[in-house]
Amino acid sequence: MSEPLRVAIAGLGTVGAGVIRLLDANGELIARRAGRPIEVVAVSARDRSKDRGVDIDRFDWVDDPTALARHPGADVVVELVGGADGPALALARAALDAGKSFVTANKAMIAHHGFSLAEAAEKADVALKFEAAVAGGIPVIKGLREGAAANAITRVYGILNGTCNYILSKMESDGSDFDAVLSEAQALGYAEADPSFDIDGVDAAHKLSILASLSFGTRPAFDDVATGGVRHVVAADIAEAAALGYRVRLVGMAEADAGGLFQRVHPYLVPLRHPLAHVSDSINAVVAEGNYVGRLFFQGAGAGDGPTASAVVADLIDIARGEFGPAYAMPVESLTAQPVADSGERRGRAYVRLMVQDRVGVLAEIAAAMRDAGVSIESLIQRGAAADGSVMVVIVTHEGPERCVAQALEKLSGSPSLTGAPMWMYILGE
Amino acid sequence: MSEPLRVAIAGLGTVGAGVIRLLDANGELIARRAGRPIEVVAVSARDRSKDRGVDIDRFDWVDDPTALARHPGADVVVELVGGADGPALALARAALDAGKSFVTANKAMIAHHGFSLAEAAEKADVALKFEAAVAGGIPVIKGLREGAAANAITRVYGILNGTCNYILSKMESDGSDFDAVLSEAQALGYAEADPSFDIDGVDAAHKLSILASLSFGTRPAFDDVATGGVRHVVAADIAEAAALGYRVRLVGMAEADAGGLFQRVHPYLVPLRHPLAHVSDSINAVVAEGNYVGRLFFQGAGAGDGPTASAVVADLIDIARGEFGPAYAMPVESLTAQPVADSGERRGRAYVRLMVQDRVGVLAEIAAAMRDAGVSIESLIQRGAAADGSVMVVIVTHEGPERCVAQALEKLSGSPSLTGAPMWMYILGE
Repeated sequence: MSEPLRVAIAGLGTVGAGVIRLLDANGELIARRAGRPIEVVAVSARDRSKDRGVDIDRFDWVDDPTALARHPGADVVVELVGGADGPALALARAALDAGKSFVTANKAMIAHHGFSLAEAAEKADVALKFEAAVAGGIPVIKGLREGAAANAITRVYGILNGTCNYILSKMESDGSDFDAVLSEAQALGYAEADPSFDIDGVDAAHKLSILASLSFGTRPAFDDVATGGVRHVVAADIAEAAALGYRVRLVGMAEADAGGLFQRVHPYLVPLRHPLAHVSDSINAVVAEGNYVGRLFFQGAGAGDGPTASAVVADLIDIARGEFGPAYAMPVESLTAQPVADSGERRGRAYVRLMVQDRVGVLAEIAAAMRDAGVSIESLIQRGAAADGSVMVVIVTHEGPERCVAQALEKLSGSPSLTGAPMWMYILGE
Repeated sequence: MSEPLRVAIAGLGTVGAGVIRLLDANGELIARRAGRPIEVVAVSARDRSKDRGVDIDRFDWVDDPTALARHPGADVVVELVGGADGPALALARAALDAGKSFVTANKAMIAHHGFSLAEAAEKADVALKFEAAVAGGIPVIKGLREGAAANAITRVYGILNGTCNYILSKMESDGSDFDAVLSEAQALGYAEADPSFDIDGVDAAHKLSILASLSFGTRPAFDDVATGGVRHVVAADIAEAAALGYRVRLVGMAEADAGGLFQRVHPYLVPLRHPLAHVSDSINAVVAEGNYVGRLFFQGAGAGDGPTASAVVADLIDIARGEFGPAYAMPVESLTAQPVADSGERRGRAYVRLMVQDRVGVLAEIAAAMRDAGVSIESLIQRGAAADGSVMVVIVTHEGPERCVAQALEKLSGSPSLTGAPMWMYILGE
């Protein structure tokens, strides 16, 4: 057996403690698979004395996480501190500059700074790995980087935020409204006190931009993700979707073609025949469509200390084996900068929900706005009045350019007939 | 850009031609990802002049496939001839002995001879890779070998035969009986003229034994797979299963624990909440349960030239990158030989279907046999008489040892009250 791979860990929250627990529990098996043992040699966290359920006295303690980059006994630095910038980024730069491989679960940092970190890793000829940054324990980075490497990937999309999926699933099963389920999720610890990163789609957008770059060989472009969340989905939307044969899911969707790079996080209606429709609770899932392999589907736990630790240690095993290449599957200089695709030219079907006054002529006004914008209506459902006297109108469009629906809604949104802002979702094809 | 990886291909059926087509179409992208081009230099097949839709005149033609092992220009031999022994095996041994890496889609050969081939590959310090041998285009070998490498895998199971899944899905959607759907599948080319390898579970057993070895670090043990197929499933079983909230799937299931290695291919009732229930048509899917990652689920096309070529070329890319290790994730000497687990000790629920004479006392006889064997009945459904006057009785048992159900059926199978052999399926937990 060769020399151990020596690891320094910054951040000992649930994931950091989980990594130590995993290496303790499966250490012998991991050494057989990796060809050598993986040993933690040093750790850093805010509070040394906190009880984490694992013995950390056997490791070097370092107060300043950035100092781990200079730890003479460490081959690899694992960053589990979090945050797009600050100490996490300082540590990443310092570790790579010091010629140490670097493993992280930090999606925000990779979404914002992955490209420059990959440059630094290439320069130092060390590994930069971030399997745990996307979809938790699911080996989807590996699946795209290596498993699907023979393919031109035409589309990558999925359910990338467990909190949103938990909320939507719970609304579906209980018929509850968004706010009630969110409060419950916060009480159970499934949602943060400030949930906006999750429910407004930012977290999913971080992950989507990483998947897009890996899939298409494009430069990471987080700022170009059109990001929407689930705040405006109400129980009645989910019920209408169910009646139409769909489930509502927050989907991150990316495509690259001659028109540029398209990246969007938005609620979608997913048909029951599509595997994403059956992804419930806090589970994550990713679909990749390749020009030879067809549709690949990966599903698993998107968060939690065990699954995240599993992904972090899988990266360490690759490093121990010496089996790692460029962070984005190809050298950074090969990654192409793509213009943002014009989403208005995308064709698809849409679900539109309007709350309107219950009076003569309103339906005619809606129908005229749709017609004027060139939207062809597949079905229109009007339900009886709500408590405030307004009426819910749900429209499902035929396939057409997204631009037309946007135009129709823009026109309608100024109308006094509407009692609230229009809400719309895209409909995923089978 | 470094030297190309030079490839010799034996077998130019749909998959062999697909590999050439893929390398032609995606060659530039693959070179960027692999760090160097992948070039076919020599080919061998039965008929040189056959039109395969790809130009093979640019490659060296070799009449005897085994001679590819000695081709001076080739770094890797790809075997797409098929068959557990014969020319495929001769080529594999010759290639590895000649110090060439070896890639195959041949599940039968790997199931029977993978261990000795892995020994030869280790001795020669070259790659032995077979991603395409299990579940077609799905990168599940990689997912287990590397993606889930940090975990002790407790259970691996899945839908491993597309022909059976197509037949079961079609029986489900059309209400047709087995023979009718099989004939239709044969006419469409989805099933072989001699379909027994598929429908009797042998093909799934090949794949299962490969997955089990990779998952548990056990020596491959194809002969120990308890193998059953789908011949005895009738339309009425699928209808009863549906009424109970299940779908019928042919599941390959492997577990390793203190009691030994359990490997079985058999029809199962899969609850609708389980992702395998939503795997339809010829799609394959694999579930791996790890002690840290929880349940991972991989789904995709299990066959076809495009998906299979995608997996073959993914292996070539790993070899081009120099990122390959032992075939079974750890050195062959580390693989442990496990005794066969006693399946009678397994606990679970079962579905039992009996065809019985329509006369007084038959139900009492069945109930007594179940009671005497210690089987606790959860529900019993008796349906009106069939054309031959016999009556169908379906029993769902409570959880209990499988041994008890087997005992009850053994006792009943000698009874003159039965008009046909009992049929049973296991019920998969959620």
